[in-house]
Amino acid sequence: MNDRLLRALAREPVDRTPVWLMRQAGRYLPEYRASRASAGSFLALCSTPELACEVTLQPLRRFALDGAILFSDILTIPWAMGLGLEFVEGEGPRFRAPVRATADIDRLGIPDPEDDLGFVMDTIRAVRRELDGGVPVIGFAGSPWTLATYMIEGGSSRDFARAKTMLIEHPRELHRLLELLADATAGYLGAQVRAGAQALMIFDTWGGVLTTPAYHEFSLEYMRRIIEHIPREHDSRAVPVVLFTKGGGGWIESLAKSGCDAVGLDWTVDLGSARARAGGRIALQGNLDPATLLASPARIRDEVGRILAEYGAGTGHVFNLGHGITPGVDPEHVGACVDAVHELSPKYHRAS
Amino acid sequence: MNDRLLRALAREPVDRTPVWLMRQAGRYLPEYRASRASAGSFLALCSTPELACEVTLQPLRRFALDGAILFSDILTIPWAMGLGLEFVEGEGPRFRAPVRATADIDRLGIPDPEDDLGFVMDTIRAVRRELDGGVPVIGFAGSPWTLATYMIEGGSSRDFARAKTMLIEHPRELHRLLELLADATAGYLGAQVRAGAQALMIFDTWGGVLTTPAYHEFSLEYMRRIIEHIPREHDSRAVPVVLFTKGGGGWIESLAKSGCDAVGLDWTVDLGSARARAGGRIALQGNLDPATLLASPARIRDEVGRILAEYGAGTGHVFNLGHGITPGVDPEHVGACVDAVHELSPKYHRAS
Repeated sequence: MNDRLLRALAREPVDRTPVWLMRQAGRYLPEYRASRASAGSFLALCSTPELACEVTLQPLRRFALDGAILFSDILTIPWAMGLGLEFVEGEGPRFRAPVRATADIDRLGIPDPEDDLGFVMDTIRAVRRELDGGVPVIGFAGSPWTLATYMIEGGSSRDFARAKTMLIEHPRELHRLLELLADATAGYLGAQVRAGAQALMIFDTWGGVLTTPAYHEFSLEYMRRIIEHIPREHDSRAVPVVLFTKGGGGWIESLAKSGCDAVGLDWTVDLGSARARAGGRIALQGNLDPATLLASPARIRDEVGRILAEYGAGTGHVFNLGHGITPGVDPEHVGACVDAVHELSPKYHRAS
Repeated sequence: MNDRLLRALAREPVDRTPVWLMRQAGRYLPEYRASRASAGSFLALCSTPELACEVTLQPLRRFALDGAILFSDILTIPWAMGLGLEFVEGEGPRFRAPVRATADIDRLGIPDPEDDLGFVMDTIRAVRRELDGGVPVIGFAGSPWTLATYMIEGGSSRDFARAKTMLIEHPRELHRLLELLADATAGYLGAQVRAGAQALMIFDTWGGVLTTPAYHEFSLEYMRRIIEHIPREHDSRAVPVVLFTKGGGGWIESLAKSGCDAVGLDWTVDLGSARARAGGRIALQGNLDPATLLASPARIRDEVGRILAEYGAGTGHVFNLGHGITPGVDPEHVGACVDAVHELSPKYHRAS
């Protein structure tokens, strides 16, 4: 198996910087759009293992990526909790039964990963079979705080007015919801590992909208608890966990002490300073601005080179974007990005 | 005159922490909504000095604020450049003639502040007359990068695809546009000082979407040039300049060296650490999360207390929000916030 990704996450020597891209399986690929159309809906695509497996593998047929991220959605857990998820064209996710009162939290049960979310485990098993040891499969989940914002707001939000009001006025209720979500997520990620996921990522898309103390209390703390409760080894191989808080560049020191193996960073952060601040405790993943992929291949190469140089020599870097690929990107530009990592990174890994 | 604001910005002793609030004159006030309705449109409200003056003064009649920020819009400069500004209900600003090609930049002229934006200067003169030395008047402008994003995108944007593509593919063109905007803004802010503005603020609403090197090259550098070219003293009194880059908490050290007197911070930043990082070079302004104003007065008071304690004892702090007041806020909650600053801050200013 190409285990560059796992080695870099463990800060072991590699021949070149491994690369995978957030939302590498997605709308920018014509073959994805065809699968999406044949599935009929986004949720049907997520919940049909053969289709989700196909979509997971599509980018690997085009690009020499070092990991395959499970095609799924962070909202599978609240969906399985019965909140009634739907995706409205051009508007994003919406819950028919958002969490608005104490009674709504009382009603929530913890989904059984195999019974209620078996399609995710089946997808991972199918991807492992198809890949046959080619590259590691990355499982994932949303952070409890991020899931809670969608569950409370009922969908996407600009200002998180309801979620933040609950945080300030009813912190105990919110803690109860977050505990429930942390338990559910730990069970869910544990099942992903047993199904074959070889690395895990927790997406904290909305942690960055909090104040520093609220981030620590309501977001980071629950990611820490999840990490504490998931199997950190499977088939006698370590299962690394990557935490990604978008807009969380100011909290690298705390993230580095959370028990995770790596921290994903958005593009506003300088990787060199981040590496110094992390103090060698963890690996770093990132952080090309996805908007760069709209530029020409020559400029993409320049930016890839800049990011590799920022991180500097030595292991512990996984090349990625600072956020997901945007739908309008030309697949050839994605190829240029991956090729640039392949070509420009070996010099940072020569034994000295 | 109540000069607490100017003294705190100069890091001189004060009896309590001065407070003003971004967007203190705005839609959350019923009297603002009445003025807006009588003006007919947002742009008519901005460009009619008696109405803009009235709206500037409205929050000061309700709350014991330490400064009056000019009611205007950051897009007055591109508007005066002839880009055809309109505000579409629920969508925000839109330019009929966005900047898409080199020829579009060639066509742009530098507006004359008194001839082309005389209504802004007339508003400042009217506010000074009405306040009669009560509290200082704060003038403002958008940062060149922020103005450029609106001019290139043609309005608000989620991903700044066009502006970032120009930055990467045609950096020299973008520099030309930013230079022009920096010249125009320096002239505009200078005229505001001559009209009576006693402090200035530059709003860099979109600097935080850039990478660290791009932020320094395309946003901070042009704010620095503006500071270099505006009168720093008027009527033998210093005119302090506050820079506010939303999402710019990672760049405090650079901001502190830009020549500004103070840096505005959003709520994600811990004021104590920010103060240490700024190294006593500048004052800090901020940083209550505007969403806090949706909570009860008791919780608002707690958060105000937390922020004052984070900054700690001594001068150099101007209490503010980390972003503008949202329209749904109850004016009584704004009052609770201002009162809390009055009541809780004197203990941080006792001579030791």
